[in-house]
Amino acid sequence: MTQPSDVTRVLSGFVSNARWDQLPDTVRHEGKRSILNFIATALAGCREDAIELTLASLMTFSKGGQAIVIGRTERVDALSAAFLNAASGNVFDFDDTHLGTVIHPTAPVAPALFALAEMRPVSGRNLLLAFALGVEIECRLGNAISPEHYARGWHITSTCGTLGAAAASGKLLSLDTERTMWAIGAAATQTGGLVECLGTPTKSLSVGNAARSGLWSALLAERGFNGPPAPIEGRQGYLSALAPSTIDWPALTDGLGDTWELAKNTYKPYPCGIVVHPVIDAALALRQMPGFALDSIERIIVRGHPLLTARADRPNVTTGREAQVSVQHSVAAALLFGAASLAQYTDACVRDPAVQALRAKITVEPSETIDIAAATLDVRTRDGASRVVNIPAARGSLARPLTDREIEDKLRALAASWCASHNIQPVIDAVWVLDRTDDASLALRLAVPAQT
Amino acid sequence: MTQPSDVTRVLSGFVSNARWDQLPDTVRHEGKRSILNFIATALAGCREDAIELTLASLMTFSKGGQAIVIGRTERVDALSAAFLNAASGNVFDFDDTHLGTVIHPTAPVAPALFALAEMRPVSGRNLLLAFALGVEIECRLGNAISPEHYARGWHITSTCGTLGAAAASGKLLSLDTERTMWAIGAAATQTGGLVECLGTPTKSLSVGNAARSGLWSALLAERGFNGPPAPIEGRQGYLSALAPSTIDWPALTDGLGDTWELAKNTYKPYPCGIVVHPVIDAALALRQMPGFALDSIERIIVRGHPLLTARADRPNVTTGREAQVSVQHSVAAALLFGAASLAQYTDACVRDPAVQALRAKITVEPSETIDIAAATLDVRTRDGASRVVNIPAARGSLARPLTDREIEDKLRALAASWCASHNIQPVIDAVWVLDRTDDASLALRLAVPAQT
Repeated sequence: MTQPSDVTRVLSGFVSNARWDQLPDTVRHEGKRSILNFIATALAGCREDAIELTLASLMTFSKGGQAIVIGRTERVDALSAAFLNAASGNVFDFDDTHLGTVIHPTAPVAPALFALAEMRPVSGRNLLLAFALGVEIECRLGNAISPEHYARGWHITSTCGTLGAAAASGKLLSLDTERTMWAIGAAATQTGGLVECLGTPTKSLSVGNAARSGLWSALLAERGFNGPPAPIEGRQGYLSALAPSTIDWPALTDGLGDTWELAKNTYKPYPCGIVVHPVIDAALALRQMPGFALDSIERIIVRGHPLLTARADRPNVTTGREAQVSVQHSVAAALLFGAASLAQYTDACVRDPAVQALRAKITVEPSETIDIAAATLDVRTRDGASRVVNIPAARGSLARPLTDREIEDKLRALAASWCASHNIQPVIDAVWVLDRTDDASLALRLAVPAQT
Repeated sequence: MTQPSDVTRVLSGFVSNARWDQLPDTVRHEGKRSILNFIATALAGCREDAIELTLASLMTFSKGGQAIVIGRTERVDALSAAFLNAASGNVFDFDDTHLGTVIHPTAPVAPALFALAEMRPVSGRNLLLAFALGVEIECRLGNAISPEHYARGWHITSTCGTLGAAAASGKLLSLDTERTMWAIGAAATQTGGLVECLGTPTKSLSVGNAARSGLWSALLAERGFNGPPAPIEGRQGYLSALAPSTIDWPALTDGLGDTWELAKNTYKPYPCGIVVHPVIDAALALRQMPGFALDSIERIIVRGHPLLTARADRPNVTTGREAQVSVQHSVAAALLFGAASLAQYTDACVRDPAVQALRAKITVEPSETIDIAAATLDVRTRDGASRVVNIPAARGSLARPLTDREIEDKLRALAASWCASHNIQPVIDAVWVLDRTDDASLALRLAVPAQT
C-alpha cells in the first residue's frame, strides 16, 4: 500500500458532507449512551485534584460566564469549559473505551461540542451527528497508528482526540471541506500527551487540551485561519511525527460512512483497568453463590489472558490509583464489599487490613486459551473443597454490552455520590431525547448544582 | 552510553539552584541582545494574520487587562499574552537561531517570563537568569534529539521551547527542584508542533502554545499539581515519544553550568532562510563595487554549501513566504533594491517584473568545499568580463555576529515600519539596563502604542 496523498481531504470532505439521515439508528443511539456515560464519569471526577487545581488557575485568566463545568457552580469561558469537562470525564479512566485502540472516545469530543452549544444555539441532531463524526476521525486515526503509537509513549486519547474534537467542532460550525482541513491542520500541530504521565494529575492536561485545542482549531478555521494541504499525511506531518514506523493507511479511509467506530464503543461497569473486569464479575458471582463464606477461603487462583498477568498482577499496592490495575485488590475488595465502585479504589480501601489480608491469598496465572474479555476464578477453601467460577465475557465488553438501564444506573450512582440531593433524572431524560431538541446544551446544564 | 535515570531531576536541580552570580557576563549580555532582537521581530510581526486572528479569537475568551501584547493596544490575560508575543516574535522566522538545532530560542521563553512579570513584580536580574536557564534546557533537549526529531516533522522550537518556557517560568516563581520537575512534566505532556505547518498561520499555534503551556505548567506546579518522576527520560516519556531512534544522552547534562547555549545564539540581519544570508551579503557587496551596472549582468552563478542548493535553489517563486527560501529571489531583490528586509519578501516584490527578469539570470551550484556560512557569487557581464565576490562568513553567523549597534538598528528599522512616530529608544535603553531594574516588565510595556 503506497501512501495516499489526500487523506486529510477525504476525511474532511466526509465530515463536511455527512448528513443526519445517513447516520444509522444504532449509531445515533450509541451516541446518546456515550454522552450519558460521559456525564456520569464527569460528575464522579469533577472534584478531583486535577480539576480543582486547573479550574482555580484558569479562573484567574478566563472571561468567565460563557459555559458550565459539569457538576460545579463556576462558569468559565468556552475553551476552558471544554478543557475542564474533558478532564473531569476522563480523570478516573472510568469513561468509555474503544477497545481496538484503548482510546476514550467521548472525553475529548463531547465537551468541545457542548461548550460550543453554549456559545451558539445548536440542535441535538447536529450535536449527535458532529459527535459521531468526531469519534470516527479520532478512532480511525487510532486504528491506523496502533499499537506502535501508544507503545512509544503517546497518550492516544489525547493525540487522536484533538483531531476528533476539531472535526466535530468544525461540523457543528458547518465548515466546508477546505475549512475542515484547516481545522484538522490546526489541531494536528497542537496535539500531544505522554503515557508517562498516567497516574498523576498531569495526565489530565493533554486530555483537557485535546477538547480545548480541537474546539479552538475549528473556531480559528471559521475565521479563515488557514493551514497546510496535508497536515495528516504530509512528509513532515502528523503521521510521520507520531507514528514513525507503521501506518495502516486503509484504516484511515476505507469504508467511510459504511462502518462507524462509535458503534464499537464500550462502557465500564467498574472504575479500573478493563482487563480486570471479568475477574471482578467472577468475584461478584462467587459472592452470590449459595454457601459462600468469606472466612473459609484459603487461596484464590485467577486465570486469564496473558495481558491480565502482564498488566495487573499486583499483590502489593499502596494507592487507590495503583489498585485500579491490581487483580488482587479488585478481587479482595469485590468479595469483601460486594461492589467494585469508586469507594473500592480509594487509598483508604487499599489500606484496609481485611482487604490486605485477602489480597495476600490471591495469585494470578496466565493462560493462552482464555480470551482477553474472559477470566476464571479457582477457589480453594479450608475444608479442601474447590470451586471454579468462569466468566466467558465481562460485563461491558462488546459481547456483553451494558444495557441502557445499566448505563443509567451508573449515572445515578455516580451522581448520588457527587450530590445526593440533586435530581439527575432530568439529565437522563434530556439525553434520550437529544435528537428531538433545538437546545443541545440543556442536558449538560441540568448537571450542575443549583445556583445559589 | 546507557540511559540515565535521573535526567529530569538533574536538569531541574540545576535550574532551581542556579544563582545570578554564576551567570557569566557574556551570557548576561547575550540575554539582553536576544531580548532586543525578540522585541524587534515581535514589532514586525504583531499585525500578521496569524496574530490578528488568534488575538481576535482569544479576546472573546480572555479576562483581559493583565498583560500587554507587543506593539498593540489590546491587553489580555497573561497566558494569552505569552501565546501572542511568542507568535509575533517568530511569525517571520526573523528571530534568533541556535544554529546547532535551528531552534528559535527566545520566542517561547521570553514571552512567558514577561507575562509573569506583569502578574507579579519581577527584577530584571531574576528575569535574565530565568531566561538563560530556560534557553539552556530548551537547547540541550534540542541538541540531544537533533537531527532526527526535526526531520520526522517536529517543529523543534515548539517541542523544546515548551519545556524551556516551563523551566524558566518555574525559576522566576522560585520553584524548588521537585516542583520544577512537575512543571517540566506538565510541559512535556502539553507540547507538540509540526514542520508540515510552516508557511501557513498554523505554524504560529505551536510556538504560541509553547510559551503559554510552559508558563501554565509552572503556575500549576506552584499550586502543587504534581507529575511523574521522569517525564523526559521515562520509558513512555518525552524522549521515547519525540525522538524514536537516537538520543545523545550526554548532551542533556554534561557540563551543566560550565557552558551556556545562550552564548551560541545568533541574530538574522535578513528575514529569510539562514542558508541564504551569505548570498545576500555577496549581492549587497557586489552592488557597492566600483563600476557595478545592473543592466550589464548576463548571468550570475551562486556557489554554496550543498544545503544551500537543497533548501533554496528556487528560481520560480510566487509568494513572499516562498521567496524567503529562494536564492534567486534574494539575490535579485538585493541587487535591485540594495536591501533585504521585509519589503523585499512581500508578494508584491515577488511579482515585480524587474525582479522576475533578474531572477531568471541566476543559477545555484553546490560545492562540497564551501562552508555553510559562506558563499560565492560569480557574475558574468555582457562585455564578457567576470567578477567573483566571496563571502567567507555571513553577517550574523557565529564567526561574524551582529554588533550590539546592528541589533539596535534592526529594532529601530522594524519599529519604524511598525509605527514611525513611536519613540523606540526607551525600549532599547530599558533592555540594556535590565540587570539593574526592579521592574522587568518595563521594557515590554514601552513597546506598545500610546493608550488612547
